Amino acid sequence: MKAAIFKGKGKVEVGERPDPMMKEPTDAIVRIVLSCVCGSDLWFYRGESPHEEQSIGHEFMGVVEEVGPEVHAVKKGDFVISPFKYSDGTCAHCRAGYPTSCIRGGFFTDETGGGQGEMIRVPLADGTLVKVPAFDYSDEIMKSLLTLSDVMGTGYHAAVSAEIQKGDTVAVVGDGAVGLCAIIAAQRLGAERIIALSRNLARQKLAREFGATDIVEERGEEAVEAVMRLTDGVGVDAALECVGTGQATETAFAIARPGSIVGYVGVPHGVELTLPRMFGQNIGVHGGGAPVRAYLPKLMEDVLAGRINPGRVFDFETDLDGVADAYAAMDERRAIKALLRVSHV
Amino acid sequence: MKAAIFKGKGKVEVGERPDPMMKEPTDAIVRIVLSCVCGSDLWFYRGESPHEEQSIGHEFMGVVEEVGPEVHAVKKGDFVISPFKYSDGTCAHCRAGYPTSCIRGGFFTDETGGGQGEMIRVPLADGTLVKVPAFDYSDEIMKSLLTLSDVMGTGYHAAVSAEIQKGDTVAVVGDGAVGLCAIIAAQRLGAERIIALSRNLARQKLAREFGATDIVEERGEEAVEAVMRLTDGVGVDAALECVGTGQATETAFAIARPGSIVGYVGVPHGVELTLPRMFGQNIGVHGGGAPVRAYLPKLMEDVLAGRINPGRVFDFETDLDGVADAYAAMDERRAIKALLRVSHV
Repeated sequence: MKAAIFKGKGKVEVGERPDPMMKEPTDAIVRIVLSCVCGSDLWFYRGESPHEEQSIGHEFMGVVEEVGPEVHAVKKGDFVISPFKYSDGTCAHCRAGYPTSCIRGGFFTDETGGGQGEMIRVPLADGTLVKVPAFDYSDEIMKSLLTLSDVMGTGYHAAVSAEIQKGDTVAVVGDGAVGLCAIIAAQRLGAERIIALSRNLARQKLAREFGATDIVEERGEEAVEAVMRLTDGVGVDAALECVGTGQATETAFAIARPGSIVGYVGVPHGVELTLPRMFGQNIGVHGGGAPVRAYLPKLMEDVLAGRINPGRVFDFETDLDGVADAYAAMDERRAIKALLRVSHV
Repeated sequence: MKAAIFKGKGKVEVGERPDPMMKEPTDAIVRIVLSCVCGSDLWFYRGESPHEEQSIGHEFMGVVEEVGPEVHAVKKGDFVISPFKYSDGTCAHCRAGYPTSCIRGGFFTDETGGGQGEMIRVPLADGTLVKVPAFDYSDEIMKSLLTLSDVMGTGYHAAVSAEIQKGDTVAVVGDGAVGLCAIIAAQRLGAERIIALSRNLARQKLAREFGATDIVEERGEEAVEAVMRLTDGVGVDAALECVGTGQATETAFAIARPGSIVGYVGVPHGVELTLPRMFGQNIGVHGGGAPVRAYLPKLMEDVLAGRINPGRVFDFETDLDGVADAYAAMDERRAIKALLRVSHV
């Protein structure tokens, strides 16, 4: 099959990989229809996190081609969304709402096939895949459903982790696709005021459409001052850290009001938490790899009812052959998020 | 007046300090009846945190001797409990339940008088002091009321910060007075199973009386293994860190189940948070200097109704003249917590 292959820093190419084969009775083989590039793929692309020179990608939806004898929740021909990690749905951590900590779960690999390819083996299919009710949605809805594979669930996780309450003032640090989805989530959870930190006009526009009430263009210390001015020196009820860098994290903690929790979902790179201020001001931190599988059914309802439109984060699209372009566009911030049209439904 | 004076590492003596004088119209002067030594005073005593050679102490209850013209909530002759920090009760942080972050608040100093002395000036008396309904309680109740000044409220804060839910399995790291109070708090919040980490027989006994259902005597890696065995490899729903050392913090994070929040109230000394595991397993952290003033009215009801008896942590008592002994007893772990009987009601 055709698949995106990571070839080292700055290099993702289309190549040939063996078709994934059934291995366990709990597996499903999925033909991928839509896929995309994740902000976290860029850590590999930029050489800031290690990655084998092999298949890559973890966000996809597609059609089930084959299931093992122990798979009962989905069947051949079903249209499904996969979260970015597989999980059994039955262990103590899955039942508690944290499938990302599933004791039998894991990430997709070269052996299963990556999410940016024509086919993929999905282990623990019953716990992992979520069936989409129909095939004939608008392209807009389809793109929004694809975001439930990672980016929308991840933004939602930032908002849930920060324990946003109705009427809250929220700040979102990061105007990437996850940050933009966190704005949608903050609004869904009842935030009254949503301050988006962004210096990019196109992203500011989308942020406002998603529910941001204020934009802060400054960075670092100046951004902190701007947010403190907007909140009468109090700070925000919930700060959502959606980048993962040291500076973004510092900003999030500096604008968080005493007693609040910073919700963080950006994979930390070079981040150090400053305990004395956290302790002195009772600022907590919660978040991590998002349990998107747990949020998926609920968020799918929101998408299908038209209440949220996270698919609007896709502002670049191509097919598998154009995957190198897709990475480059995101890396150069020409694109917020790049869609890969892999096959037809 | 007579007061405890910090004289450098390992040395606290009784000496003479000027009587505190009214300074602001919002002040009250309180004659101290009961005081005590805090686990956090030991950081100074052991030379692990800096402290001026001057008045010390911050937990006390006593009788109001004088109030400024702008004090309305308490009057001369009232019997009052003070939290370990003063606060106005009206700023945005106080109203949000975090008086420890009060924009006008602060710690008691040599100038106000320390909490281990005969008299003290309490700034922002209306926001700070809590009137005790009567004078004629049993000595047992009196001692429990004194714990609301810090240690019981701090243990309670660990439990609240970890967001204990009814039916939870909780572990308390630290068998000092705060850890023991955290056990009381966990039980009050509905924890079904409370695992106390303690290797001291007297403390284990008190832990069980306060509600601990299991005792783990091991430390470090072995303690982690023991707790994991007790929880079928899942970890606890809430880990309460009540020490502040690196090892205690590591233990708390290692036994916290994915998705849970470590409640921490031990002033961090040499603590580093390990973000990769926190992120990977969605383990949060929340806590800090406890907003005991916010909890005080509710916990006072519990004490007066006999629902909780935190005063049992006092297993050593003396008067101001014996303050050096009181510190030594706690430092050598001969005492859980030392009471100072300063004057009569």
